[in-house]
Amino acid sequence: MNVTKLVCSACGVTFAPGKVYNLCATCGMPLFVLYDLEAAGRTLTKEALRTREANMWRYREVLPVENPAENIVCLGEGWTPLMPMPRLGAELGMANLYIKDEGQNPTGSFKARGMTAAVSMAKELGIKKLAVPSAGNAAGAMAAYAARAGLEAHIFMPQDTPQANVIECREMGAQVTLIDGLITDCGAEVARRKEAEGWFDVSTLKEPYRIEGKKTLGYELAEQLDWELPDALFYPTGGGTGLIGMWKAFDEMEELGWIGSHRPRIYSVQAEGCAPIVRAFEAGQTHAGEFPNAHTKASGLRVPKAIGDFIMLEAIRKSGGGAVAVSDNAMIKAVREVGQLEGLFLAPEGAACYAAMVDLLEAGQIGEDERVVIFNTGTGLKYLECFGED
Amino acid sequence: MNVTKLVCSACGVTFAPGKVYNLCATCGMPLFVLYDLEAAGRTLTKEALRTREANMWRYREVLPVENPAENIVCLGEGWTPLMPMPRLGAELGMANLYIKDEGQNPTGSFKARGMTAAVSMAKELGIKKLAVPSAGNAAGAMAAYAARAGLEAHIFMPQDTPQANVIECREMGAQVTLIDGLITDCGAEVARRKEAEGWFDVSTLKEPYRIEGKKTLGYELAEQLDWELPDALFYPTGGGTGLIGMWKAFDEMEELGWIGSHRPRIYSVQAEGCAPIVRAFEAGQTHAGEFPNAHTKASGLRVPKAIGDFIMLEAIRKSGGGAVAVSDNAMIKAVREVGQLEGLFLAPEGAACYAAMVDLLEAGQIGEDERVVIFNTGTGLKYLECFGED
Repeated sequence: MNVTKLVCSACGVTFAPGKVYNLCATCGMPLFVLYDLEAAGRTLTKEALRTREANMWRYREVLPVENPAENIVCLGEGWTPLMPMPRLGAELGMANLYIKDEGQNPTGSFKARGMTAAVSMAKELGIKKLAVPSAGNAAGAMAAYAARAGLEAHIFMPQDTPQANVIECREMGAQVTLIDGLITDCGAEVARRKEAEGWFDVSTLKEPYRIEGKKTLGYELAEQLDWELPDALFYPTGGGTGLIGMWKAFDEMEELGWIGSHRPRIYSVQAEGCAPIVRAFEAGQTHAGEFPNAHTKASGLRVPKAIGDFIMLEAIRKSGGGAVAVSDNAMIKAVREVGQLEGLFLAPEGAACYAAMVDLLEAGQIGEDERVVIFNTGTGLKYLECFGED
Repeated sequence: MNVTKLVCSACGVTFAPGKVYNLCATCGMPLFVLYDLEAAGRTLTKEALRTREANMWRYREVLPVENPAENIVCLGEGWTPLMPMPRLGAELGMANLYIKDEGQNPTGSFKARGMTAAVSMAKELGIKKLAVPSAGNAAGAMAAYAARAGLEAHIFMPQDTPQANVIECREMGAQVTLIDGLITDCGAEVARRKEAEGWFDVSTLKEPYRIEGKKTLGYELAEQLDWELPDALFYPTGGGTGLIGMWKAFDEMEELGWIGSHRPRIYSVQAEGCAPIVRAFEAGQTHAGEFPNAHTKASGLRVPKAIGDFIMLEAIRKSGGGAVAVSDNAMIKAVREVGQLEGLFLAPEGAACYAAMVDLLEAGQIGEDERVVIFNTGTGLKYLECFGED
């Protein structure tokens, strides 16, 4: 297809496509995929998109798979609805509030996007055994795509990950190991064992393709809003691949001539109990230290240290956005607020974005007439433990 | 739009559109909606569909809402993926096996289709309070669409309905009552209280529009297979609205000139612990008696008596299909068989269809070269109680 090279996000060293990569061999930082966008734009046009398939592979010219017919491992991921929220908007006095519902993906979360790309590339590159540390939803997605591709999936999750994640992985035939610790401890276990076991490490941003899948969120956002990006977007940030991916997509779309130089203000949303990006943003730091004693019901936000922290912080600042922490109580309350007015069962992470948006609206940082998009990264069905009896 | 009248499925009496209906005022049987298909076909063409929205309202000319812009209550339902199953197929020696994954609907099940139609029509007709007896997934869908429409939702479910269903309803702001009994007991409770409470009864086939939503399964099946229906389809049958709806859709599409007179063989799949249709089919009966001591882990199949039994039995027989019962053990085993080869986490009801299909393949009733579609009616995430520790 149109991949020209891979480039290190930190030191800029480049690598030839068609080989197996994890992090930059020079500096150990994440790699990005670069494309010949002029070539891509010859067949990938706004007009062509009107009749493309209703999944994220509609953007295949800017995705890394070389032989799509053979190697795309698809379960129908992406092209999720971006829905106006008229009843919530009326409550808040907002005319242009939207939720993008990633809960309608296969495996019930946005992680399907990254994993379809990573597993498709693993298949294309001849990799046979995959391993991943996960807060839960990445695990379920990897288990599903690995199964569909016929690859081994070795999954490491914290012991207190929601039951839904553990059960879905087992039913997809994955090897599941529960660790008494956080996702960082799971990552350390994968790192310790991968060489001896012959596993390919699919950790967030430690291979170059999950971010390529996630960036389709940005393409869809533009296409679904008729190529006019919103004023602000709220995105729950664990590892941050989606945020970084969208930022990359915006640049690619500008180069394709599809959008201008305007960017939405990006608000990273985290939990009060685990807010490394918020803390670093407020302190004016370029990198985020590991957050101590990380705890939150929003398991996807229980990521005390993200390798892509510096990329996120730069994107947030360049966009003129910010970083907001939300309490667990506020996010669980927000699930029901959104549910009873609009009928969407949000994941706590998505609900956190709604709560953060309301906070900034009240603080005057979001205008009532602005076009605002909230990302719901998964279905609440995967978080039953968070909800009480009444 | 194009509704001409409603007609009783049993006695043939007709009714004018635009009014509130439950069952036939003459004989108490379900009503069907009829359309001016010539008028519908002027704008609803195969060509027009190529650029329509990726949800079931793409077929709005053959759906009952008079004022779509005002009254459609949409959460992105329908246009779910119909996926080839190459790895399962290879195991079984089948070249053309597909699963339609209804788990990717809003609320994680096919019930979204019926409820978007029923709630949209309730909104259009000025109804304010809805009530429904449900085995679980219809409840979650009604709660969601009622919330989005701003209508009251009163929900009655058996006490042992999966937790996911109970929690999703509560988080959508519905009034939930758990009954020590079966869906038939829940239905009796709705019937007993609805007049005093001013509730509109949204029970399966007791209002005319859920079936209209469900019939879009048939339209999608045809469109996704490039207007050539499969040889056989396996559909899990509780109340049977989807089966009856598809049968209706096939006739409509023939009248639209989109397909010929060929019909797929329809196989109704039930649980051994609750198989009224299978029993009636095998006994050559036109109606199905209430199944005693109904029990199965597939909560959606725990429907001992369905008002549309006679319509289902007629469609199954006319199609040259059949009715098959599957044990709970077989369906739970099938979840993992499909999961580890294809990465889909099926509901037990969908897995039952897979198990039934394998049985008929081994019995020679399904040919290895036939094009076969299995309907997975929901995500396994809503049935965590069914899956063990191991």
